[in-house]
Amino acid sequence: MAPTTNTATVTSRASPAEAPIKRPKKYRHIAAVHSVPKASCLSHDSDAAPSFLGFRNLMVIVLIVGNLRLMLENFKKYGVLICVRCHDYRRLDVMLGIALYLIIPCHLFVAYIVELAAAQQARKSLRGPGKSRDGTTTPGGSYVPTDEELKKFYSTWILIAWIHGINATLCLSITSFVVYFYIHHPLIGTMSEIHAIIVWLKTSSYAWTNRDLRHAYLHPSSREEDAVPEIYNQCPYPQNITLGNLTYFWWAPTLVYQPVYPRTPKIRWIFVAKRMAEVFGLNAFMWIASAQYAAPVLRNSLDKIASLDFPSILERLMKLSTISLVIWLAGFFAFFQSFLNALAEVMRFGDREFYADWWNSPSVGVYWRTWNKPVYQYMKRHIFSPLIGRGWSAFTASIMVFIFSGVLHELLVGVPTHNIIGVAFIGMVAQLPLIAMTTPLENIKSINGKVVGNCIFWISFTLIGQPLAALCYFFAWQAKYGTVSATLKAAGRTS
Amino acid sequence: MAPTTNTATVTSRASPAEAPIKRPKKYRHIAAVHSVPKASCLSHDSDAAPSFLGFRNLMVIVLIVGNLRLMLENFKKYGVLICVRCHDYRRLDVMLGIALYLIIPCHLFVAYIVELAAAQQARKSLRGPGKSRDGTTTPGGSYVPTDEELKKFYSTWILIAWIHGINATLCLSITSFVVYFYIHHPLIGTMSEIHAIIVWLKTSSYAWTNRDLRHAYLHPSSREEDAVPEIYNQCPYPQNITLGNLTYFWWAPTLVYQPVYPRTPKIRWIFVAKRMAEVFGLNAFMWIASAQYAAPVLRNSLDKIASLDFPSILERLMKLSTISLVIWLAGFFAFFQSFLNALAEVMRFGDREFYADWWNSPSVGVYWRTWNKPVYQYMKRHIFSPLIGRGWSAFTASIMVFIFSGVLHELLVGVPTHNIIGVAFIGMVAQLPLIAMTTPLENIKSINGKVVGNCIFWISFTLIGQPLAALCYFFAWQAKYGTVSATLKAAGRTS
Repeated sequence: MAPTTNTATVTSRASPAEAPIKRPKKYRHIAAVHSVPKASCLSHDSDAAPSFLGFRNLMVIVLIVGNLRLMLENFKKYGVLICVRCHDYRRLDVMLGIALYLIIPCHLFVAYIVELAAAQQARKSLRGPGKSRDGTTTPGGSYVPTDEELKKFYSTWILIAWIHGINATLCLSITSFVVYFYIHHPLIGTMSEIHAIIVWLKTSSYAWTNRDLRHAYLHPSSREEDAVPEIYNQCPYPQNITLGNLTYFWWAPTLVYQPVYPRTPKIRWIFVAKRMAEVFGLNAFMWIASAQYAAPVLRNSLDKIASLDFPSILERLMKLSTISLVIWLAGFFAFFQSFLNALAEVMRFGDREFYADWWNSPSVGVYWRTWNKPVYQYMKRHIFSPLIGRGWSAFTASIMVFIFSGVLHELLVGVPTHNIIGVAFIGMVAQLPLIAMTTPLENIKSINGKVVGNCIFWISFTLIGQPLAALCYFFAWQAKYGTVSATLKAAGRTS
Repeated sequence: MAPTTNTATVTSRASPAEAPIKRPKKYRHIAAVHSVPKASCLSHDSDAAPSFLGFRNLMVIVLIVGNLRLMLENFKKYGVLICVRCHDYRRLDVMLGIALYLIIPCHLFVAYIVELAAAQQARKSLRGPGKSRDGTTTPGGSYVPTDEELKKFYSTWILIAWIHGINATLCLSITSFVVYFYIHHPLIGTMSEIHAIIVWLKTSSYAWTNRDLRHAYLHPSSREEDAVPEIYNQCPYPQNITLGNLTYFWWAPTLVYQPVYPRTPKIRWIFVAKRMAEVFGLNAFMWIASAQYAAPVLRNSLDKIASLDFPSILERLMKLSTISLVIWLAGFFAFFQSFLNALAEVMRFGDREFYADWWNSPSVGVYWRTWNKPVYQYMKRHIFSPLIGRGWSAFTASIMVFIFSGVLHELLVGVPTHNIIGVAFIGMVAQLPLIAMTTPLENIKSINGKVVGNCIFWISFTLIGQPLAALCYFFAWQAKYGTVSATLKAAGRTS
């Protein structure tokens, strides 16, 4: 059972330290194998815990083997389910999708026209010959506006805000209406809806940022904390209200408007090509995984949900969790790493921090702050911080953020699936108690607290969040259009 | 989507360094979120690779969930398969098992009697009045025996060796004969066989060690490398040839005889109780795992093996690999950590190094040198080193060790299952090319070489070694006694 092919052990027996000349030992069977007391390395008596790196390797192997086996089982049961020609995109869906794709960005340009008018009016009010400035100038050179001037600024802003509000709301409501009532295919619907939400967020960020910049332009302040960020000095208000500046913001991989962004010196086209290859590869992978592995699990769970067979639902949920996790991870990487980096490279956009290491999150709160930086930055800059500035507590401001986020999620999932059942909304709002529960774990010094928090995050996200939501919307979809609907109707007829 | 419940972020905005008094910012929507170029943390552009500790936690969770799901599936398919009263130990099996349990250690006492006679003869030849010593004494005081004296020693040894050989061989062959022909139940058979092999190894170690000690006693040498280990001075030959000394060796958790072992000062009975509780708990676990999970997989694979349906055999092998691995790990811990530590504590045996961290093995060779230290120590001291001393190369000595080990493995598995089909023997000998293949990986400095070696070890051990061997012997057993036999006979009748 136990050899020593390693010749080092053999030669060491006759090493120079022991005997100057290599002479074989006379007595070969008397070596004292047990000469000193030693503890087993897994015992508590042992001085140091051994490394368990080998078990990590084993886990990876067992995971791969276990899933290869499930793939083999799936193939034996269903054969190849992937079919390129089987997708039936209705002609109307495609036409409406293209129309929405072209219409949605127009709202951003409407916002531009509004801001252009406001900027011209501001420029006039500051430099126009018919206007005199009634405020006082402090010894430091800072201008303190009068109450009247401020009142006037805000009354103008209210008009602008109404126009922006109507414009942005129209963008989102037209898309949602068309998708909900006319676009059957959920993929086209989701793409249109996500596009509308992005443009809606960009429009509002554009409006708010320019409101504050205009105010700072009209009423300069010497207070250090009111200073416009240094990076904006390259393009001060109102020079930023140009079509080129807006077009850059339209395509830039961010939801937060800034007149100036950090830029990279040149476009590395090979980098772009690599990232786009990743996008295509991962999308193909996600498509295969959905069609071959997720779809059968979802289909097989329909009758279990219809009959409320809870052990079977749990079993389906567990089977679904791995595949939904894999698809989600692939989707995360494809979008946040590959696609956004490719887009940023083409746009020479410098800040590539689209995510941080959310997979190590010691709490649910850290996860929401790190996995999707563009949305986090939008929420923090335009919802959370302004509410804090108005005197709200961090807790109530967080509630607002999650309610707002819940509405957006429900729009994103409920509208394209034609089932506004509130699961996505509740899923988002349910994060608040989870965050409150796991935040204390962030501050625990020992590694165990972090591991516990990380596990709670993974379980709530991998096992309950993703697959349960997918199951709910799939069931609702099937109940409206698919086989469950037919079964339920048939059951109703017979009973 | 992204809140900041953490109040630290809020207060930091008004930290002393930025502003001495906490004043809200006037412009809340203009913060420069993107102020410096940054790389995505998974990009190659990033300075440092992020930690992936979270993914390790995820792997553990996915493994647990995946296997809980399989347990749920298993329960829904088979119900509870565990049955305490279903075991039918034949009366004859139990009687023969008890008889063998009592007879086997007798061979150790026969060896004792032989050694007692040899020791008395040696004592007489050294101190007896009728004997004179013809050798010369060197200036250093060392005695150099004459050729005649040496010849006489070896001729006596040949007689002793024959008696020991016959005694030990009888021990193993009687047990093997009884188990193969009369004990049907494989568990009782395996226990008896393993007992016989242990006593056989202990007997041979006792004989060889005492042969060398006697030689050193009769012909003291001044050569440093021929010195008897220091620890033996507490009980020099022939004082060690006592019934008490042998009884200690009989029960000590080692296969290697030493007159003296390192000892612990006292028995910690709480330690013993904890270890024995582990042994019982793990045995119950292994029994449940075998009956509920391994048995159905083995049964379901019978017709696939009979019809040589290779994709299905592969699928079964993969399903079996996880459960056989879990049972093996539990068995390893139960025996090498819990049982041997409990036994060592009761025996106040000091050297508890029954295994090292074999799970980190960077090569197959390291695994065989570390997982089972008692057998490794036996093989190294009584087979490998003596062969090297006779001038064999390390490579040929290793081949001998593995051939010997293969024979023992085949006895251990083939005899109780009544199928000496050679799979265990071939499995052991096949380790040699694997070791040769993976030994170069030990010396690679980078961590990747070690990981590759570790993965090769785990795959060959977990996926191919354990489950394939289990499948082979189970199939052979069933072909001889079980359902396959009936099916094959029926098929033969119809064709």
